[in-house]
Amino acid sequence: MALIVQKYGGTSVGSPDRIKNVARRVARWKRAGHRLVVVVSAMSGETNRLIALAKEIQAHPDPRELDVMVSTGEQVTIALLCMALMDLGLKARSYTGAQVRILTDSAHTRARIVSIEERTMRRDLDEDCVVVVAGFQGVDEAGNITTLGRGGSDTTGVALAAALKADECQIYTDVDGVYTTDPRIVPDARRLDTITFEEMLEMASLGSRVLQIRSVEFAGKYKVKLRVLSSFEEEGAGTLITFEEDEKMEQATISGIAFNRDEAKITILGVPDRPGIAYQILGPIGDADIDVDMIVQNVGHDGLTDFSFTVHRNDYQKALEILKPVAQHIKAREVQGGDKIAKVSVVGVGMRSHAGIASTAFRTLAEEGINIQMISTSEIKISVVIDEKYMELAVRVLHKAFGLEQPA
Amino acid sequence: MALIVQKYGGTSVGSPDRIKNVARRVARWKRAGHRLVVVVSAMSGETNRLIALAKEIQAHPDPRELDVMVSTGEQVTIALLCMALMDLGLKARSYTGAQVRILTDSAHTRARIVSIEERTMRRDLDEDCVVVVAGFQGVDEAGNITTLGRGGSDTTGVALAAALKADECQIYTDVDGVYTTDPRIVPDARRLDTITFEEMLEMASLGSRVLQIRSVEFAGKYKVKLRVLSSFEEEGAGTLITFEEDEKMEQATISGIAFNRDEAKITILGVPDRPGIAYQILGPIGDADIDVDMIVQNVGHDGLTDFSFTVHRNDYQKALEILKPVAQHIKAREVQGGDKIAKVSVVGVGMRSHAGIASTAFRTLAEEGINIQMISTSEIKISVVIDEKYMELAVRVLHKAFGLEQPA
Repeated sequence: MALIVQKYGGTSVGSPDRIKNVARRVARWKRAGHRLVVVVSAMSGETNRLIALAKEIQAHPDPRELDVMVSTGEQVTIALLCMALMDLGLKARSYTGAQVRILTDSAHTRARIVSIEERTMRRDLDEDCVVVVAGFQGVDEAGNITTLGRGGSDTTGVALAAALKADECQIYTDVDGVYTTDPRIVPDARRLDTITFEEMLEMASLGSRVLQIRSVEFAGKYKVKLRVLSSFEEEGAGTLITFEEDEKMEQATISGIAFNRDEAKITILGVPDRPGIAYQILGPIGDADIDVDMIVQNVGHDGLTDFSFTVHRNDYQKALEILKPVAQHIKAREVQGGDKIAKVSVVGVGMRSHAGIASTAFRTLAEEGINIQMISTSEIKISVVIDEKYMELAVRVLHKAFGLEQPA
Repeated sequence: MALIVQKYGGTSVGSPDRIKNVARRVARWKRAGHRLVVVVSAMSGETNRLIALAKEIQAHPDPRELDVMVSTGEQVTIALLCMALMDLGLKARSYTGAQVRILTDSAHTRARIVSIEERTMRRDLDEDCVVVVAGFQGVDEAGNITTLGRGGSDTTGVALAAALKADECQIYTDVDGVYTTDPRIVPDARRLDTITFEEMLEMASLGSRVLQIRSVEFAGKYKVKLRVLSSFEEEGAGTLITFEEDEKMEQATISGIAFNRDEAKITILGVPDRPGIAYQILGPIGDADIDVDMIVQNVGHDGLTDFSFTVHRNDYQKALEILKPVAQHIKAREVQGGDKIAKVSVVGVGMRSHAGIASTAFRTLAEEGINIQMISTSEIKISVVIDEKYMELAVRVLHKAFGLEQPA
């Protein structure tokens, strides 16, 4: 008999029939003897409908009022799910973020959870009641309604699991787990039974199709056992995201091949190789609120070095504009860049204890004539930047080179 | 510089354009120097949409969860109106019933207001802010969301006006005031500048097209000045519903002709004329939750009397069934009834000090050959039950007989 937090996303509750399906699934868990807290998102499309309505009134809707409005999406779903649960003969009670008292800061539309009052939920659980909580929302100290930003329902689920010390937080979505890579690119990609939090974070590009990355960080921080499952399949254990590395002692060296084609690269050539130069380049980029992903600087020679980094493609032109005067100021030779690139990453905690992973990856790409433009490595990830047109090919050959299609 | 509570109904806020119109009207009052609290309903159709959605899940939706869901309708409107007000350069802040803390009892879907916390609203008003409050909803002692039942937004408006001791509560609707009778029946019916609370209550059938009767009772109890206005016309002072009779010293004897064709009559003939007999007849009717409107009993003779009353037509058959054994038990001669009747009422506080109103009414009907089946009078109302087919004719001739088409 476990305490389980389940979270169902917008497509899982997208129609009355789907809500009834969710209720049947919750009922099975309840009747198996578990205690259940269920977090739901707004019905799919509802949040966008509300935002569009707001924009008909105000081009840039006031954040406080937008939160008041958008939070109604989940408020409707919690009530509907409770009704469906009652129709199956279960006791159920719904709570908005404010009613639970999910206390957040006051950063409307992107608030962060500060604390969660668990008393009411505990009382209901003790009364054999399924507790249904609106995801994505909270309330600030002054009583204003806040939202956690897109995908925030995952974070609500994890935060409730942490507060209640739940045995597991199950995230139900439209995919049945985390895969070794995107099955649309590699048809024999395999679902992973387990993956570590660190791997999940490094696989952001794969993982974000499944889970909001912020909720994974949150789960890692509070040691919440996270499981990703399909809400459309009856069976299947999904993928367990675990913080205990030893649980997967038997695992393969590599967990997956991640990729990303949303980035652009920028290189400043002939940069004087002296202390503080990285800050002089990236400081103005950060001031302009542009996120930098990979950063590569090689050893210099003749007092000069080349400095490269990647940014989101949407920020590429802006970053180039910012760097022109910077390059002049630091007396760099030239600014180059390109937005027809892709980043491909080989991820796995196993590589910590296995040599030769990098050389296998580089050889595999070389054999296909794929030129590597940038390389960056962490303890559990090797990332390369290549020409965008080779991306799918690179993912396929790396997936095969590390034997990911075979069961672990 | 007055403190004014304005209430806008569902059609007044039925689209983004209409919400912008409401904002412009509020802005005019604000810029004229007044302090404003605005109560809004859900956009027209929204409440019905939500109820229909609930019924797709549960044939008889759970009242607590229905309240959670249906209350989102107003929550969307308050945010949209605030956005529209900000777009006009005003400061505005929205509050749900729970956020104001409109404390109610726990009777979900038909809760009654217990108290209103005015502190937050006062603070905002002092900061030159328009306060926008969700109508129709509140919160109970345990923090559950409640709703006041259909039309409850009027009650919210009046209750806020009472709590804040507002100078006036303005109810904006799709008609521009209270008329001497329904203009669809008498085209030259005239809008009343003022009407007393008592008259308004007696004119329920006319008034309910304009205001929820419960809110009128509430206003009378707390001495709130109520004004009914059109939200679609730029000018016009509407109808002021006042508790001060002397304000209308100059008024005509009669204020209006009300009517109602939703009733049925039941007569028990040959009832033994003894104490307790009325209770023996109406007790079982009340026990069956059937509301009784008119009750008429004339003096008896030979120890027998006839006892008549009217009920809603929907309850007619049920009431007849209940009375059959009752009539046998009390040894009455016969139970008769009919549901093809109409009630027509002449209403006016002026009749208190004017003789001959009743005889004028009866003569007028007699001249048209309209037979009167029942008569019931109060201090400010004379009601007659007639054959339904004469209803419009009766209203027209009475309206003319009392000179209601002429300006007071």
